[in-house]
Amino acid sequence: MVQTVPIILASQSPRRREILTMLGVDFTVEVSAADETVGVMEPGEIVKELAMRKATAVFHHHKEDCMVIGSDTIVWKDGDVLGKPKDEEDAAAMLEKLSGDINTVYTGVCVLYRKNGTVVRDSFFEEADVLFAKMSQEEIRWYVQTGEPMDKAGGYAVQVLGGRFIREIRGDFYTVVGLPLNSLYEKMKRLGALAPENAEEV
Amino acid sequence: MVQTVPIILASQSPRRREILTMLGVDFTVEVSAADETVGVMEPGEIVKELAMRKATAVFHHHKEDCMVIGSDTIVWKDGDVLGKPKDEEDAAAMLEKLSGDINTVYTGVCVLYRKNGTVVRDSFFEEADVLFAKMSQEEIRWYVQTGEPMDKAGGYAVQVLGGRFIREIRGDFYTVVGLPLNSLYEKMKRLGALAPENAEEV
Repeated sequence: MVQTVPIILASQSPRRREILTMLGVDFTVEVSAADETVGVMEPGEIVKELAMRKATAVFHHHKEDCMVIGSDTIVWKDGDVLGKPKDEEDAAAMLEKLSGDINTVYTGVCVLYRKNGTVVRDSFFEEADVLFAKMSQEEIRWYVQTGEPMDKAGGYAVQVLGGRFIREIRGDFYTVVGLPLNSLYEKMKRLGALAPENAEEV
Repeated sequence: MVQTVPIILASQSPRRREILTMLGVDFTVEVSAADETVGVMEPGEIVKELAMRKATAVFHHHKEDCMVIGSDTIVWKDGDVLGKPKDEEDAAAMLEKLSGDINTVYTGVCVLYRKNGTVVRDSFFEEADVLFAKMSQEEIRWYVQTGEPMDKAGGYAVQVLGGRFIREIRGDFYTVVGLPLNSLYEKMKRLGALAPENAEEV
């Protein structure tokens, strides 16, 4: 696959950077302030909306052909949105709530794409169920003091120390990490940001 | 958690090393030749048996208190075992077979544990379903020429370039990578190779 336009990731998250790197594309990272307050919405709509605002805030600064990718992730449990913990106590309470049970991770993606002056906007979300092992009080205290939960939606990371507490995932692993890899790849092919090397294959 | 004995990983796989590193334990890597021919068996029994042989071959060289961890992974599709591809043609044929469909990854683990002269052997396996996106001929050719499929059971890796072709996983992501992280962690706690820092918590 060959990249046809400059790509800009509208997210500071090192996890999203790593996932986008897996696609072998060159990209820059650029973030602009976006309002993150939302009303009462379905979780999939929340992450799509926030991904769209993040991507739009960055896309406004670009008049050239390019693709801007915005993304947002939340953890959903018993009708509550779990964002990033406010403090260690909040992180411990989130883990207590997740322990021994299934939570659902929603990741929204918005792609804004300008090619030869034409702009396409495409938003979608993916969800994945995550089954937590039962955590002891000691494990919760230990995990909180590692600091890993503090900047993660829902207070955990599947790809680092938190992985030991995850029994099972149903969905795209990378949706849980923060960027649905296969869906994003398919979208980039469909929009033409990634094109086959041999034109006769198209 | 505190590690109570030296740990030896009986596998050269860099992926297994990375997963064991996620548990924060110190370990060494040691591999001894083990017969890898098996008769007709259920896939879960095959990986348990091969994990046991790998662990036993290494454990024989150790008389001190220690834990040896052996592991084996196969991909199972339509009743066939897919091991590591023999050559590029074989890799392409495997990917053709996996494209657009579900395959099941079996990873067996054998733990041999000596503590105060008493030896415990514990074997188990985990399985995870992997749903592949439909791959084009160009994608198969491209992926094979990256070289990534060549040393992987089933001809793919979910955690590197191959991740883009994976729609969904049902099971422990790390079972697919090559070592079931949560099950191994739970096993090490139960056997006492990992112990809580505060004794009153046991």
